[in-house]
Amino acid sequence: MTIGTTALAQKRADEPVQTIPAMRNLDPAMVELGKKLFFDPRLSKSGFISCNSCHNLSMGGSDNLKTSIGHNWQKGPINSPTVLNSSLNLAQFWDGRAKDLKEQAGGPIANPGEMAFTHELAIDTLKSIPGYVDEFKKVFRTDKLSIDEVTTAIAAFEETLITPNSPFDRWLDGDNRALTSMELEGYKLFKESGCVACHNGPNLGGNSFQKMGLVQPYKTASTAAGRVEVTGKDADRLNFKVPTLRNVELTYPYFHDGEAATLTQAVDLMGRLQLGREFSKDENAKIVAFLKTLTGQQPQIAMPILPPSTDKTPKPRPFE
Amino acid sequence: MTIGTTALAQKRADEPVQTIPAMRNLDPAMVELGKKLFFDPRLSKSGFISCNSCHNLSMGGSDNLKTSIGHNWQKGPINSPTVLNSSLNLAQFWDGRAKDLKEQAGGPIANPGEMAFTHELAIDTLKSIPGYVDEFKKVFRTDKLSIDEVTTAIAAFEETLITPNSPFDRWLDGDNRALTSMELEGYKLFKESGCVACHNGPNLGGNSFQKMGLVQPYKTASTAAGRVEVTGKDADRLNFKVPTLRNVELTYPYFHDGEAATLTQAVDLMGRLQLGREFSKDENAKIVAFLKTLTGQQPQIAMPILPPSTDKTPKPRPFE
Ligand code: HEC
Ligand code: HEC
Ligand code: HEC
Ligand code: HEC
Ligand SMILES: [Ca+2]
Ligand SMILES: [Ca+2]
Repeated sequence: MTIGTTALAQKRADEPVQTIPAMRNLDPAMVELGKKLFFDPRLSKSGFISCNSCHNLSMGGSDNLKTSIGHNWQKGPINSPTVLNSSLNLAQFWDGRAKDLKEQAGGPIANPGEMAFTHELAIDTLKSIPGYVDEFKKVFRTDKLSIDEVTTAIAAFEETLITPNSPFDRWLDGDNRALTSMELEGYKLFKESGCVACHNGPNLGGNSFQKMGLVQPYKTASTAAGRVEVTGKDADRLNFKVPTLRNVELTYPYFHDGEAATLTQAVDLMGRLQLGREFSKDENAKIVAFLKTLTGQQPQIAMPILPPSTDKTPKPRPFE
Repeated sequence: MTIGTTALAQKRADEPVQTIPAMRNLDPAMVELGKKLFFDPRLSKSGFISCNSCHNLSMGGSDNLKTSIGHNWQKGPINSPTVLNSSLNLAQFWDGRAKDLKEQAGGPIANPGEMAFTHELAIDTLKSIPGYVDEFKKVFRTDKLSIDEVTTAIAAFEETLITPNSPFDRWLDGDNRALTSMELEGYKLFKESGCVACHNGPNLGGNSFQKMGLVQPYKTASTAAGRVEVTGKDADRLNFKVPTLRNVELTYPYFHDGEAATLTQAVDLMGRLQLGREFSKDENAKIVAFLKTLTGQQPQIAMPILPPSTDKTPKPRPFE
């Protein structure tokens, strides 16, 4: 047996990136209820689309499509960001228009291009299902069952979706063997060429809004205007929340329009557009190798068993 | 502590219904691979639809829609049967056109109204993903990766989807307290009025093809012709595989066209169309109460973490 290098190692405390902070204490019953809701397609008009359809927890918490498919196979306007570690972000959505996970979770249910339902119908549906009524009562200790309780529970579940213990986190914790020399060189390039100006902190992003196309303009057919939609300030046009780079190996394709198919392309564009720098093939490969060390332990999810509808439950209306 | 009634009880061996037989020995690594494939939307053209989309294991192994939603939001022709306990059926599909689960599993991938892919593209996709290539090699001890291995693995996973230990099974095993007197009266009605002529054996169905509308014709807008499509015999028109009644509480709506929204309606129609008998409200409620005792332990599924695509993986084409 070797003496654990991790145990003896010095933590790397002065890096611009930190390990994922420990989860806040959460009521396990509320998390379990939130998980059911996250997986329940009955929160959509069609009865076919759940949060997990577009934030698939088998696939890094996103759908791996350029832009999402919503109700009636509608082509969505923007790439679906991962829900993994999203509790660490300063705000939710690419333009930050929801201040936190709870505020965010009301959005997709009533979004005509996503779940195409209304909060009223979603609540009527849940209220018609005794399994849910009992569980809400137990968790919230009240007979009230409104969108407030629904989004609180979903947000609690989402808070559990963190991915600790990536190779890079183990390196930060002092395990020198956690990264290969190529990966480490990639990290040095990432740090020294300035990526960490925007991708820093425990989520390597998620803590500021930045212009896409800072040095050179970004060419895209997408009409998403970014942060300006929230602030009304023209300076915020094409500013987007800097996406987390955790699990970025899993969350292809990249950028708000999903137009970069590979990490190689994304890194190349970031270098040119944000830093005015062209990486050599070798440098690019090193940065990509580093980015892949950010894949953490994926949440282990036992599929929820959803309480069945009753004769009174409103019927799904997929084709209306 | 009371002395276990189950332990001392006499098994009820002479009933027309039997408990679910023990699962055959299966290679756990193959089952795990099959589970990944069952959950992987990359087996569809869109990258959005997996087996679990229409056979949701959170919802009794079906989609709870009248007829399924397929690629491009196509309205399917027929109700999605549960995959739970489907290994116990004499054949697969409503008309029995696939002899077993392995033969069945090739169907939906290439069905233009379901996953709309081709076997070739599905295999190209899997071959481009090193995580899959390694796993297939480990499980099948060969470099061959074809639709044959894919459907073998999916079928192995599906064989694990049995739901033992329902209240009714516990009663069959001799536990007198497993059923209420109302449920027991429902079972007596079910037996004595002749339902067991078709819904018998361990799956309460799944072991014969029978005419829908035996005594009175069934009126439906559906054009599904049933078993005649397979045999070519006119006598088999509107003959369907008798569906299992296990977990029937979870697999609403009912019949091949999904036109019966509730168990009350399904029981009423079965009585009139198959037996020429009208159940009173009270009798109907008893039979429905009995049917709900057929809900067994649902499979506990840990969501698989799918191996990520690579730069070489063919891109999903949801809007083509
Ligand atoms: C039809 C696809 C779809 C469905 C269904 C869907 N989402 Fe999203 N989700 C998206 C897209 C696309 C975005 C980005 C939208 C934007 O930024 O304008 C998003 C953004 C988010 C974000 C913000 C993440 C971040 O870092 O900014 C969270 C959290 C989230 N969704 C959770 C949920 C929850 C919870 C549900 C179910 C109640 C849900 N989503 C349903 C596609 C979907
Ligand atoms: C000035 C701020 C800034 C700098 C510097 C920067 N980025 Fe980004 N990065 C962003 C923003 C903003 C986005 C989102 C852009 C969009 O979606 O349109 C982004 C997106 C990305 C993405 C795609 C993530 C995803 O999930 O879509 C990757 C990968 C990435 N950056 C890597 C890098 C690398 C590597 C560097 C250094 C070469 C770098 N970034 C430098 C702000 C920055
Ligand atoms: C778009 C919806 C959809 C998708 C995707 C789908 N199925 Fe099905 N499945 C159905 C429908 C509808 C039927 C009934 C078709 C018929 O009988 O003609 C069915 C029938 C079955 C049956 C027969 C059950 C029985 O008792 O007869 C099995 C088993 C099955 N599917 C497994 C799968 C597997 C495995 C996959 C993925 C490879 C899959 N399905 C994908 C909708 C779907
Ligand atoms: C002569 C054969 C036969 C008899 C007798 C019979 N059934 Fe059925 N049952 C079927 C067939 C065939 C179907 C499928 C019909 C269809 O989908 O069009 C079916 C479907 C059902 C369903 C719907 C299952 C599902 O998942 O869609 C229920 C519930 C049901 N039967 C209960 C009963 C009850 C209760 C009785 C007695 C009152 C009964 N059946 C008598 C053959 C029979
Ligand atoms: Ca993405
Ligand atoms: Ca059904």
